[in-house]
Amino acid sequence: MFLKNNWYVAGFGEELTTTPLARTLLGEPVVMFRTESGEVAALEDRCCHRNLPLSHGKVEGNSLSCGYHGMVYNTTGQCIRVPGQDVIPSGACVMHFPLVEKDGVLWIWMGDADKASPGRIPDYPIHSDPRWAHKGNHYTINCHHELINDNLIDLSHVGYVHGKTIGGTPGAHSEAQISTERRDDGVTVRRFMPGTVPPPTYQRAMNFAGNIDRWMEIRFVPGLIRIYIGVNDAGQGFDEKTQMDKMGMRIFNGITPETENTTHYFWTAAHNFRVTEPEVTNNFYGEISATFEEDRTVVEAQQQRFEQFPGRKNVHIKTDAGGIHARRVITQLIEAERLAEKGNQAPAGPVIRIAQTV
Amino acid sequence: MFLKNNWYVAGFGEELTTTPLARTLLGEPVVMFRTESGEVAALEDRCCHRNLPLSHGKVEGNSLSCGYHGMVYNTTGQCIRVPGQDVIPSGACVMHFPLVEKDGVLWIWMGDADKASPGRIPDYPIHSDPRWAHKGNHYTINCHHELINDNLIDLSHVGYVHGKTIGGTPGAHSEAQISTERRDDGVTVRRFMPGTVPPPTYQRAMNFAGNIDRWMEIRFVPGLIRIYIGVNDAGQGFDEKTQMDKMGMRIFNGITPETENTTHYFWTAAHNFRVTEPEVTNNFYGEISATFEEDRTVVEAQQQRFEQFPGRKNVHIKTDAGGIHARRVITQLIEAERLAEKGNQAPAGPVIRIAQTV
Amino acid sequence: MFLKNNWYVAGFGEELTTTPLARTLLGEPVVMFRTESGEVAALEDRCCHRNLPLSHGKVEGNSLSCGYHGMVYNTTGQCIRVPGQDVIPSGACVMHFPLVEKDGVLWIWMGDADKASPGRIPDYPIHSDPRWAHKGNHYTINCHHELINDNLIDLSHVGYVHGKTIGGTPGAHSEAQISTERRDDGVTVRRFMPGTVPPPTYQRAMNFAGNIDRWMEIRFVPGLIRIYIGVNDAGQGFDEKTQMDKMGMRIFNGITPETENTTHYFWTAAHNFRVTEPEVTNNFYGEISATFEEDRTVVEAQQQRFEQFPGRKNVHIKTDAGGIHARRVITQLIEAERLAEKGNQAPAGPVIRIAQTV
Repeated sequence: MFLKNNWYVAGFGEELTTTPLARTLLGEPVVMFRTESGEVAALEDRCCHRNLPLSHGKVEGNSLSCGYHGMVYNTTGQCIRVPGQDVIPSGACVMHFPLVEKDGVLWIWMGDADKASPGRIPDYPIHSDPRWAHKGNHYTINCHHELINDNLIDLSHVGYVHGKTIGGTPGAHSEAQISTERRDDGVTVRRFMPGTVPPPTYQRAMNFAGNIDRWMEIRFVPGLIRIYIGVNDAGQGFDEKTQMDKMGMRIFNGITPETENTTHYFWTAAHNFRVTEPEVTNNFYGEISATFEEDRTVVEAQQQRFEQFPGRKNVHIKTDAGGIHARRVITQLIEAERLAEKGNQAPAGPVIRIAQTV
Repeated sequence: MFLKNNWYVAGFGEELTTTPLARTLLGEPVVMFRTESGEVAALEDRCCHRNLPLSHGKVEGNSLSCGYHGMVYNTTGQCIRVPGQDVIPSGACVMHFPLVEKDGVLWIWMGDADKASPGRIPDYPIHSDPRWAHKGNHYTINCHHELINDNLIDLSHVGYVHGKTIGGTPGAHSEAQISTERRDDGVTVRRFMPGTVPPPTYQRAMNFAGNIDRWMEIRFVPGLIRIYIGVNDAGQGFDEKTQMDKMGMRIFNGITPETENTTHYFWTAAHNFRVTEPEVTNNFYGEISATFEEDRTVVEAQQQRFEQFPGRKNVHIKTDAGGIHARRVITQLIEAERLAEKGNQAPAGPVIRIAQTV
Repeated sequence: MFLKNNWYVAGFGEELTTTPLARTLLGEPVVMFRTESGEVAALEDRCCHRNLPLSHGKVEGNSLSCGYHGMVYNTTGQCIRVPGQDVIPSGACVMHFPLVEKDGVLWIWMGDADKASPGRIPDYPIHSDPRWAHKGNHYTINCHHELINDNLIDLSHVGYVHGKTIGGTPGAHSEAQISTERRDDGVTVRRFMPGTVPPPTYQRAMNFAGNIDRWMEIRFVPGLIRIYIGVNDAGQGFDEKTQMDKMGMRIFNGITPETENTTHYFWTAAHNFRVTEPEVTNNFYGEISATFEEDRTVVEAQQQRFEQFPGRKNVHIKTDAGGIHARRVITQLIEAERLAEKGNQAPAGPVIRIAQTV
C-alpha cells in the first residue's frame, strides 16, 4: 500500500544518460533514460512483446528500442516500430510515468498521470546555491520506508547511534527542546540544544573553542525529509534571517519505496563552511556517509524483528511524536487517494490538526 | 506440469563414471551412475530408509550403496542388502528411470517406464561423424524451459542480442524468408537470408570476401532443438544433397526442465570446416558459448518479469509463429498424457495441422 | 512445535561477557549478557519501543541499554529508564528467560519460568574433572534437531560416514551388540563391539598393537546427548567401576532448536589419555570436528529431501530403535505440555515402557 499520487525522488539528474537506467519504484520496475535531445523519460521496464526489461535495450534518437527483437517505443510508451512487419499490433504499449528534472533531482509520479502537477514538486535550491557545497549518494535499504522516516524525524537517536560522528552527549539529544508542527501534507519538527559539547564531526570541521548551541529543523513531506541545521558558539545567537550560521548543514533525504520492505535512499549533505575546498566537502560527506551506515544497521535490524513478530507489543515515548504524525499524514493521504479512486470525494475535514507540541 | 512420457537429455555419456552424478530433472532428484560393468542407470536420489541422497553413496559392482547406513540398491532401485540384518524390509525400494546412452548423450525417461521405447530417442549422428568436429557444455538456466524454446526457435533475435558474434545486421534477421511446419510431435522452422553481411563469428572463421547467403533449419521436438545452418558466398547456391556447405554448423540443444522455473541446457556446437584443428573447434565453441551467455541474460530477465507480473498483457509479432506452435505441441502432448493417465484415449484428432507459414 | 519446558544449552559460559550475545533459540531471538557483577541473564532480543534488537545495545552495571534511544532494562526484562522523560510507559518490558551457568555450560529455559527448576539441569562433571581434557565448538546446522538426535543415537553410521576418522570397518558397527533402554524422559543405547580393527582416530591417538574391544553408551534426554566411550585391547576387559578405560572418550552434544529447520549444536570432546598435552587435545578435537562436518553434510542433505518430499515412504531398520524411542519421548513430553497448558493433567500412564532391546 503506497501513496501513489505523490512526487518521489527517482534519482539524481547526473545519473541519467542515453544508457537506460533500471530502478524498481513503488514495486514497479521502471526504466529511465535521457533521449538524444536531452529530454528525460520513464517507462514500465518490460517490453509488451515477451517481457524482456526495456533497460536491456538502447536509446535511438528520442526512442528506446528493446534488446530482444528490436521493438521501438517512444517516450510515452507507445510502440512505434516492429522490425520485419509493417503493422504495429493493437495494444502494443507500456506504461509511462511523468519524470521531471529539478534542482539536480529526478522526480517521478507513479500514480494517476493526469494529477501530476510539476508545480507541486518540493523545492531544494541548496543544490544550486553557491553558498553551499554538497555531495550525495544512493543506497538501497532493506526496510520499510517509514522506518527511515522515523529515524530521521526523531533525531534523539543520534547520541546513541552516532557517538563517533554527529552524536555527542546522548542526554543532550534526549533532553533537546522540541516542537512538532503537523500540517495536512507534512510535519515539521524543531529542536534546540543550547550549550552542549560539540560532537566529533562538528569539532573536526570547525574546531570550536567551547560548547555550542544547535538548532535543527526537520521538514517531512511524503517522500522527502529536508534537515536544516545551524550551529554557533554557545550564547552567540543564530542568524535567524538568512540561516547562514557559523556552521550550517543541510541534508536532503529522498525516501522512495522500492518494494514493501526495501527503500531507495537518495541523499546529499551540504555545508556552508569552506565551500570552495573539495577536501572539506569530501570529509563532511564521508562522516555523514559513515553515520548513515550506522542508521542502516539499525533500521534493517528493526525490519527483521517487525517481520518476525508482527504482533508484538510496542510502546511509545515522547520523542516519537514527529514520526507518529508523519505516519498519520501518509495514512490519511492514502485513504483520501483510495476514496478518490472509488469516485468519492475525501470526507470533509479528514485531517485533524494536532497541537504543535505533543 | 511437465510432459513426462518423453525422452529428455540427462547429460553427456562422458560425464558418467562409477562416481554417482546427482541432477534434478523434471522436479525429481535423480542419481545416475555407471556400474563397474559399464551399464548406465538412474534412480530416485533418496534412500528409502532416512532420505539421504543416494548420490552420497558409492558404486559397488553393479549396485549403489547408501553413504549413511550402507543399504545396497540394484539398478532397478530394489534394496538388496541391509547391513546388520538378514531381512530386507518390505517396500524397501526407490524409483528407477530408464536411461540410454546414444550418440554420446544420456537420454532419460521420467514418465511411465512401460512406455519408454528406445526407438523413439531422437538421432544425432553428427556427434560421431568424422566430417564434423564438436564441443559442448551444460548450463543451468534460471527460467522456464519454454523461454529457451522460444529463444532458439525464433532466431530473428540474433541480430539484436548477438551483434558481436553470430548476429550481424539486425534487419536481415527480421526480414528473413521464413516457413514454419507444424507436426503432431514437433515444429520445423526454415529461414533463408540471401545476400547479407557475414556476422563477426562467421567472418573470423571463414574470412568471406563479400556478402553471404545463409539457410537455417530449426527442428523442435519436446526436449530437443537441433539447429542446422549452411552458409555460402552470396549467389553460389547450397549443397542441397549433403548439406555440407562451404560453412556448415550444427547446434544440439538438449532442454530439460530441472524445476518449474529452472532448466538444464545441454548443448554442443559442431562445424564442418577445418575439423582437424582443435583450435578452430575451441574458438568456434568459445563464440557460441559467449552467444549463449547473452541468451541466458535475456531469458533469465524475462523469467523475472513473468514471475513478477503474471497477468500483464503481451502482444505477438510475426516471428513468434514457430515458438507458439512449439508451445501448442507441448500443451497437446501433456493433455493427451493426462487423458491417458485417466484411462481414456486422447480424443480423435486432437492435433490440428496448421498451414506451414503463419 | 518445540518442547518448551526443558533446559536447553544456550552456549558455553566462556562465550558470555558484558558484550551482548544474540542467538535465536526455539524460534525466539534471545540476547544473553553477563552483568558487571558477573550474573548471567537472557532477555527477548527486541526493544519494546521500536523493535531494535537489544543485542545492539550495551551492558551498563547490571542493566542492558538499547542502542537506539537508550532505554534501559534490568535482568528481568523490565524497562527501568527512558532518557528524556520521567515516566516509564506502562507495559514497557520484554520477556526474560531463566539462564543458569553450570559445568561451563549456559542452560536456558524457554518455557513457563515458574517451572524452571535448576535442580533438573543435567550434570556434566567431566568439564571440570582433571582426569579429562576437553575442547569444543558451536555449529549451526541446517536441519531439524531430531535428525541430529537420530544421527548420534544410532552410531551404526560411523563405519559408512566416518571411515577416515572414528569409523573403521563398516560391518563391525552394523553388527554391534546393542541394547536400548527407554525411560519417561530419555533413552539410553549401549553398544559393544568386541575384537574389531581400531579406526584411524583411535590408532593415531593410542597406537594399538592389535584389535580392540569398544563399548559405547549414548544417553539421550531432550536437548542433550552424552556419549561415553571406552576402549581396550581386545580381550583385556573394561574398567567397569570407574569407566576410566585405556582409551576413554566423552562427547557432550547440546542440541537446541534454533528454528523449525535449523539447530544449534554445542559440543565438546573429552579424552582421558595424555590429558596434560594440549597438542593431543587439539588433535583429538580436530578429528572429531572433521567427523562432525561429515555428519553435517549428511543431516543437511536429509533435511533437503524431507522438505522436498514430505510424503515419500520411508522404511525402518533394526538400528533405528533408539532414535525412534527418542522421537516418542519428545512427542509424549510435548503432548503432556500441551495438555498441561490447557489446564488438564496428562492422562494417567501416557508413557508406555518398551522392552529394553527392540
